[in-house]
Amino acid sequence: MKTFMDKNFLLETETAQELYHNHAAKMPIIDYHCHLIPQMVADDYKFRSLTEIWLGGDHYKWRAMRTNGVPERYCTGEDTSDWGKFEKWAETVPYTMRNPLYHWTHLELKTAFGIDKILGPDTAKDIYDECNEKLKSPEYSARNIMRRYKVEVVCTTDDPVDSLKHHIKTREDGFEIKMLPTWRPDKAMAVEIPANFRSYMEQLSQVSGVNISSYDDMIDALQNRHDFFATQGCKLSDHGIEEFYAEDYTDAEIKAIFNKVYGGTQLTREEILKFKSAMLIVFGEMDHSKGWTQQFHYGAIRNNNTKMFNKLGADTGFDSIGEFTTAKAMSKFLDKLNTNDKLTKTILYNLNPCANEVIATMLGNFQDGTIPGKIQFGSGWWFLDQKDGMQKQMNALSVLGLLSRFVGMLTDSRSFLSYPRHEYFRRTLCNLYGTDVENGELPNDRAFIGQTIENISYYNAKEYFGF
Amino acid sequence: MKTFMDKNFLLETETAQELYHNHAAKMPIIDYHCHLIPQMVADDYKFRSLTEIWLGGDHYKWRAMRTNGVPERYCTGEDTSDWGKFEKWAETVPYTMRNPLYHWTHLELKTAFGIDKILGPDTAKDIYDECNEKLKSPEYSARNIMRRYKVEVVCTTDDPVDSLKHHIKTREDGFEIKMLPTWRPDKAMAVEIPANFRSYMEQLSQVSGVNISSYDDMIDALQNRHDFFATQGCKLSDHGIEEFYAEDYTDAEIKAIFNKVYGGTQLTREEILKFKSAMLIVFGEMDHSKGWTQQFHYGAIRNNNTKMFNKLGADTGFDSIGEFTTAKAMSKFLDKLNTNDKLTKTILYNLNPCANEVIATMLGNFQDGTIPGKIQFGSGWWFLDQKDGMQKQMNALSVLGLLSRFVGMLTDSRSFLSYPRHEYFRRTLCNLYGTDVENGELPNDRAFIGQTIENISYYNAKEYFGF
Amino acid sequence: MKTFMDKNFLLETETAQELYHNHAAKMPIIDYHCHLIPQMVADDYKFRSLTEIWLGGDHYKWRAMRTNGVPERYCTGEDTSDWGKFEKWAETVPYTMRNPLYHWTHLELKTAFGIDKILGPDTAKDIYDECNEKLKSPEYSARNIMRRYKVEVVCTTDDPVDSLKHHIKTREDGFEIKMLPTWRPDKAMAVEIPANFRSYMEQLSQVSGVNISSYDDMIDALQNRHDFFATQGCKLSDHGIEEFYAEDYTDAEIKAIFNKVYGGTQLTREEILKFKSAMLIVFGEMDHSKGWTQQFHYGAIRNNNTKMFNKLGADTGFDSIGEFTTAKAMSKFLDKLNTNDKLTKTILYNLNPCANEVIATMLGNFQDGTIPGKIQFGSGWWFLDQKDGMQKQMNALSVLGLLSRFVGMLTDSRSFLSYPRHEYFRRTLCNLYGTDVENGELPNDRAFIGQTIENISYYNAKEYFGF
Repeated sequence: MKTFMDKNFLLETETAQELYHNHAAKMPIIDYHCHLIPQMVADDYKFRSLTEIWLGGDHYKWRAMRTNGVPERYCTGEDTSDWGKFEKWAETVPYTMRNPLYHWTHLELKTAFGIDKILGPDTAKDIYDECNEKLKSPEYSARNIMRRYKVEVVCTTDDPVDSLKHHIKTREDGFEIKMLPTWRPDKAMAVEIPANFRSYMEQLSQVSGVNISSYDDMIDALQNRHDFFATQGCKLSDHGIEEFYAEDYTDAEIKAIFNKVYGGTQLTREEILKFKSAMLIVFGEMDHSKGWTQQFHYGAIRNNNTKMFNKLGADTGFDSIGEFTTAKAMSKFLDKLNTNDKLTKTILYNLNPCANEVIATMLGNFQDGTIPGKIQFGSGWWFLDQKDGMQKQMNALSVLGLLSRFVGMLTDSRSFLSYPRHEYFRRTLCNLYGTDVENGELPNDRAFIGQTIENISYYNAKEYFGF
Repeated sequence: MKTFMDKNFLLETETAQELYHNHAAKMPIIDYHCHLIPQMVADDYKFRSLTEIWLGGDHYKWRAMRTNGVPERYCTGEDTSDWGKFEKWAETVPYTMRNPLYHWTHLELKTAFGIDKILGPDTAKDIYDECNEKLKSPEYSARNIMRRYKVEVVCTTDDPVDSLKHHIKTREDGFEIKMLPTWRPDKAMAVEIPANFRSYMEQLSQVSGVNISSYDDMIDALQNRHDFFATQGCKLSDHGIEEFYAEDYTDAEIKAIFNKVYGGTQLTREEILKFKSAMLIVFGEMDHSKGWTQQFHYGAIRNNNTKMFNKLGADTGFDSIGEFTTAKAMSKFLDKLNTNDKLTKTILYNLNPCANEVIATMLGNFQDGTIPGKIQFGSGWWFLDQKDGMQKQMNALSVLGLLSRFVGMLTDSRSFLSYPRHEYFRRTLCNLYGTDVENGELPNDRAFIGQTIENISYYNAKEYFGF
Repeated sequence: MKTFMDKNFLLETETAQELYHNHAAKMPIIDYHCHLIPQMVADDYKFRSLTEIWLGGDHYKWRAMRTNGVPERYCTGEDTSDWGKFEKWAETVPYTMRNPLYHWTHLELKTAFGIDKILGPDTAKDIYDECNEKLKSPEYSARNIMRRYKVEVVCTTDDPVDSLKHHIKTREDGFEIKMLPTWRPDKAMAVEIPANFRSYMEQLSQVSGVNISSYDDMIDALQNRHDFFATQGCKLSDHGIEEFYAEDYTDAEIKAIFNKVYGGTQLTREEILKFKSAMLIVFGEMDHSKGWTQQFHYGAIRNNNTKMFNKLGADTGFDSIGEFTTAKAMSKFLDKLNTNDKLTKTILYNLNPCANEVIATMLGNFQDGTIPGKIQFGSGWWFLDQKDGMQKQMNALSVLGLLSRFVGMLTDSRSFLSYPRHEYFRRTLCNLYGTDVENGELPNDRAFIGQTIENISYYNAKEYFGF
């Protein structure tokens, strides 16, 4: 019997162990998609308590606690003490066995705090105190945690209207880890509520210095910001979409739709879809002209619980996996860009694992031989960011594409303690190759496979994104 | 090599074996959803032959026989002898290797009749005779079979118009195993054929003593029956729906729709969907007011073979897995109840395993911290009630929710010989935990994991349903 | 550690090894669905080079090369040398590890050319030269390659207007391997472009000798060709459809639709669907009257890359897996034939593995006890023709139907080097049974299981198709 989470955790064969320890473990981290708060890096933030750094904003943990029968005030309540919340989380942890939270939890305790104890009601106080003590030391500032995990690059997720002042300050401070912005222009295509869109246009106008009263003005303003993001080292965009939008439209229609919504009138569903379709193309073309990589995260259904949405707002743990059949629209969208020679490097992330094979075969339709793995299948996203989800994504990519050209892992996380997910991913990756080698399904070519592990862990991303 | 179906059947590790033998095996059975015929319990039915108890009404076996090239008269024919049918089944059994029927068959022979032989043409006669001999003894009456399997509670599936006289008689007899009714009001929302609906309304009127001529009357009558079911110990409802219905409607619309269909006029598709949407809400509110658990089984396509439907009617083995994308409607329906603080405990069962991840993440949207696992992902249903289906359901629930809070297994069966499915489920469950422990993916915490096994096998259901 | 691709490749247990070596390996090959070019068999074609026999027309390899960053001229370019292309393929091969191409490649080198080397840049020249040398010998003519693999029957895929002259010549030559035609009338229901349909009707008229100016004429002409195919030994039809078509229609409508499209007028979407629905029924009835087996391959989205389609045409590696929910239409179509006692033996192939459970349960709706496995779930098709895809198909068929009655593998290939896929399939099959036996999930009944392996490898197909 293997000891829980020992050094060969998740590594079931000797080959896997060797691949991990000799090749994967040493590679730095490129976290090319995350949700870190840039100000915390700029300020080199110090954390008040384990509760703050670990439970604050962590809707994965809140969901588990609610499922375990823990009242809401221990999840998101403002009048509950840090210890009170932590205690309830510690009570919940044993009930998360077989959930990735159980692994994240202990991997984070171990790698960030050097704690090998199992978290539960009996150990909660000791662990809480020990971590809080450590968090007081400079070693546990935001930047020092990033250094501890050998992070080399992080790409945050930013709105076009963002000033990027924290990115600038961080760079000007001489912080050796690159924190680069990512262009996430979702609000520029959120035309569902005219007043919100108008208000966003006013922000965009202000920050870009472009007067906006027409569609063309908006595009000018966005181009201005796109150029500014580029000057700040931006290399990626990201789009959170429910489905792919690929309606037919004319320029005249889009201009008229802009005028309508800008003027405060509710659009029809058809107009909304046409507008989104047009904006996806515009953004794709902008990215292509700069050689950026565009990312698409699609397939969630959000804010399912109206009561809690009204209390807590979005991103508080009430989203789930949707059922969308968007392959034809995805194909049409990519084809339109490709036909005009404007299809840039692209990463597709699905939330429903049923689409794994759809995505993994979609890639091949638009690989054009210009660079390896131009169109990528994104690593297991959100609910799928766990061993089973990662394995399914990597297996689908393997049998239907080229795993060897995969740009690998990202945290997609708001937390400075999430970097062990790269370790988790790399262990899972090494285990897949190791099993195949030991089963005689791959030749025992350690040099090539070792290099492949290093590539997927680090070099592929470095080269693909151009860091 | 392991012996076929020995005491460590399905238990691949020592840990799994220990968990099963020390924790799972001893727990009584709570079969909270089944289709036993209550009269057979009330009458303490004696079975004529192995064919009657085993092949009668068993459309799983019929499907296998038809697939194996066995003529229909040996499946459902009325002029075929019990032995004739059994012989054909015995010939088919070897061809079912790798199908769950092969396991059910031998597990049932072993646990019910103490027979370790493999059923096939060469053993058919001996097994048939031995079982028939045993079936003559009082040990093999309906109630004694239930006792043999340590059944503690069964919940049958009953129409609101049912008198529940067999439940009452059974209870009044002092039978120590609880047989409770389940509220299954499908016919009250089956408005597709006006004449059938009208006839059902008349039955409902008679049994409730409420004159029905309007929608409000119907609701009164249903409430009357709901109250009556409660007096008989009912704790669950069940709804067999093709998809979730969550159309918008007004009370006035529903009343008008009722009048139209009650008056004998065919409804439009839109009216049917509105009516069903309204009824699902009404039933959800009734269940909430009593603290019952509502169950939803969705996703089958039924009666695909018109020729055989015309000969044999429904539930004769001509149904299959459908392709529905109902996540948004499911969410909208649950949200509507939740918004009005009327969302009761709920179990969601899907038939297409593609929806596993949708369901397993839907739960979290409505877990509210009031009780552990308030919203449940039902155990592998119908076609999915086999090792692979169970594992996929438990793995999805594990990685996307809390397996530890799962209320576990049910037979969903018409047969008194189906209880070994609980054993099968428990072995599969123990095997999952055992593998994780021995792989170092879970700590070797036998006390907590042993308790978890007992909980999923028994205590979770007991507490959740309030038996 | 097992050696890569040794004699026990994919056979993880002793039982699996014994089943493979004693039962599967010796069986001849019935390749009941392929895309061989009949003329190459008729002419007993000799291949110019390894590039021609291996890379020519192989869009699987082209996709991998494009993904690996290889420019198009090395895939499909006309001005690139055979060696130039091969060299790029050899450079790509190591990057295909974990993709089925890696296995196919080495299995084909081994079984066709006796080469055990791993293909890569360092071995490319040697392997290329050795294979080219061998290809010059008579042993490597088209017919001799077929003999080498113990092929007994191949069924090509042919248009109703095909003269079948190559089939006739091959038979008259006395070639001992049966090459039979398959009826693939896709063009007769391709009414999207009136001019193409008209031109096809003219071809059909010419070859059948039937003047076509009405729907009835067309049916007469098709019936004439169907009869002719039968005289040439045809036993199967095949239909490449995006989805199943099961619209309601009247004869008068179909006749009017024919006149419209034949007259050169573009049809509406509804008319197209009605026409296809009618033709599927007509073809099903024709096949039933002759006792043929009808095959349906559905679920691809094709020609996604317009730019490359305009350069290279169809079937060049720009197709992918679609998302269709066609279960109800499939059921309705099969039911319509069944209701009229016209449902012939049928094989259903899905491209999206999400439909595995839908198909595997659909079968049971129409199994009628006349022959074993009348309705079949086709082996993993196209992208799914790999170990994971095969296992999922066989596991779904096992738990939801009868694997024992499966007609097994086919290559679906244009290549004379694809026969080792039968070996790959058989190894995978034996491995599934072997694991179950050694785990105690099946009894160690070597005689029955050995026979089952032989049946799935060979005898089931022989009997089912009537070769």
